[in-house]
Amino acid sequence: MKTTAAEIAPQLAWIAVDWGSSNLRAWGLDKHDHVIAHASSEKGMLSLKADEYEAELHRLVADWLPDSGQINVMVCGMAGARQGWREAAYLPVPTRLDQLSQGAVIPTLSNDRLRVHLLPGLSQTRSASAHFDVMRGEETQLAGLVADNASFSGLACLPGTHAKWAMLASGAVTQFTTYLTGETYQLLARQSVLQHSIGSDDLNDSACRDAFIAAVSEIHKAPATFSSRLFGLRAQDLLDGTLPPGKARSAILAARLSGLTIGLELSGACHACPASEPITLIGNQVLCQRYTLALNAIGYQTQYVDGDTAVLAGLRLAHQALKT
Amino acid sequence: MKTTAAEIAPQLAWIAVDWGSSNLRAWGLDKHDHVIAHASSEKGMLSLKADEYEAELHRLVADWLPDSGQINVMVCGMAGARQGWREAAYLPVPTRLDQLSQGAVIPTLSNDRLRVHLLPGLSQTRSASAHFDVMRGEETQLAGLVADNASFSGLACLPGTHAKWAMLASGAVTQFTTYLTGETYQLLARQSVLQHSIGSDDLNDSACRDAFIAAVSEIHKAPATFSSRLFGLRAQDLLDGTLPPGKARSAILAARLSGLTIGLELSGACHACPASEPITLIGNQVLCQRYTLALNAIGYQTQYVDGDTAVLAGLRLAHQALKT
Repeated sequence: MKTTAAEIAPQLAWIAVDWGSSNLRAWGLDKHDHVIAHASSEKGMLSLKADEYEAELHRLVADWLPDSGQINVMVCGMAGARQGWREAAYLPVPTRLDQLSQGAVIPTLSNDRLRVHLLPGLSQTRSASAHFDVMRGEETQLAGLVADNASFSGLACLPGTHAKWAMLASGAVTQFTTYLTGETYQLLARQSVLQHSIGSDDLNDSACRDAFIAAVSEIHKAPATFSSRLFGLRAQDLLDGTLPPGKARSAILAARLSGLTIGLELSGACHACPASEPITLIGNQVLCQRYTLALNAIGYQTQYVDGDTAVLAGLRLAHQALKT
Repeated sequence: MKTTAAEIAPQLAWIAVDWGSSNLRAWGLDKHDHVIAHASSEKGMLSLKADEYEAELHRLVADWLPDSGQINVMVCGMAGARQGWREAAYLPVPTRLDQLSQGAVIPTLSNDRLRVHLLPGLSQTRSASAHFDVMRGEETQLAGLVADNASFSGLACLPGTHAKWAMLASGAVTQFTTYLTGETYQLLARQSVLQHSIGSDDLNDSACRDAFIAAVSEIHKAPATFSSRLFGLRAQDLLDGTLPPGKARSAILAARLSGLTIGLELSGACHACPASEPITLIGNQVLCQRYTLALNAIGYQTQYVDGDTAVLAGLRLAHQALKT
């Protein structure tokens, strides 16, 4: 990666931006789509008014710009939400992932050096086989799968606060489902009666890993027991003489809570996938490793795509589509 | 009920107390076990140190006491917890509910006018068919069923923040399970991404009632979908053109969230019960009516016992056992 503005500006061809709720990451790319610059800030949708986006973007990338010409900026994520910079309305599924830029909106800027394209999210209305759902940002990571394989088909999972599962067929999202897994875990671990029992959550320890896997399998087999297994963590903390004391105890219970919440997600999400097909995990490595552990435990194989790699590939696909 | 201390004192035979986490209710009873006095305070376990319980109790009941003699005070609930007045250790199930007073502890008081019996809770360790669990307070409400029918058998449910389901056989609790239903609802409705969509929850409106029943049935059939149906509430709020706007909209979504959380509980709890046997609901009337609506929707019958009536009957049973 180039280190000085003087080196970047002559080669800059376009800019990729992932603009989420709580932060913003920008990459400068050359004409071969190689990353030559990177910048980030903590100014996400939740801390910006609509008229503050342009200045924030300019603050981050102004040094990269060549002396003349207009630079395309491909933006995915919450900047395109109704509460963001300007709304890029959801595209209803099924949607081909190489056509996201057709739904992009171009905000009017005071500075004509940048031409910003806010990519749309995806929506799904209720039908016999589907439920209301929305995504914004994850569709661009999914598009990254299609950038490398135009006819990509299969089940993809993006773990996180609101985990997304999408079925892709020949490069299009046909159906998707969001699970409130990460948020539910955080609320239960930090704000419920369980907060007294739940410690730090790290699967490097083998007892924690075992507890995690056992909980995943248990809930995958019997999702109806989820709510009672939650209180069971508190009771186990009070009664189980076989658990170690102190931090080791609360770490095992944390691993078990994680296994229960992820197991509930998997029991809802995996039935659509034949066990012979690998599930594609997209996201940060540690969390995806946790999902791999869980999925392997219930008989599924996975393949992994780094989240940043995916979003950059998806933005590249959208940028390429501008030219056609 | 008597209104003056002068009328109460000559007739007072014993005192019943339900001492929970956040409040305390005391009743004075005559020798026929009729309630002749009532008092309450907001001083529950969470706001009292161990050495403050006696003074708080005395403050509430001192006026009721006759000039001489010692009065038995039967206490259930969190006052007997480790963090309470003095610990009354859990009795392991199976436990006959007419024998709770055998596990009572009698704290040493500075005032010898009262003889306090702190009743124990129940615990359950892990086995092939059961999971770790605890209850404290609810066992005395269950004992109320046995006070009127010594050989009571059947499935009983005490809805609430931590809903308890207990299987009773011939007057004994053989197994029980706690569901984190009420607490999960509150966390999701008030502190999750759903807080923007969830309004006041009242089933008097028929659209809300229908949404509640539909959600119960949906999750009872497919508990694995629970986590995705949660996020679906947010998506439905964004996308569903058939819902009314404003408060009517958020009330329907609140009813639906309630149906999802209660439905998950029922999918875990009801399979043990033949649909031909009524499920006994114990608690406050409005909440038990909601559970009746939910249980009827999935094919179960209910019978209702008022929560205060149950706890008083349970404390009476424990008081009677002192004499034998």
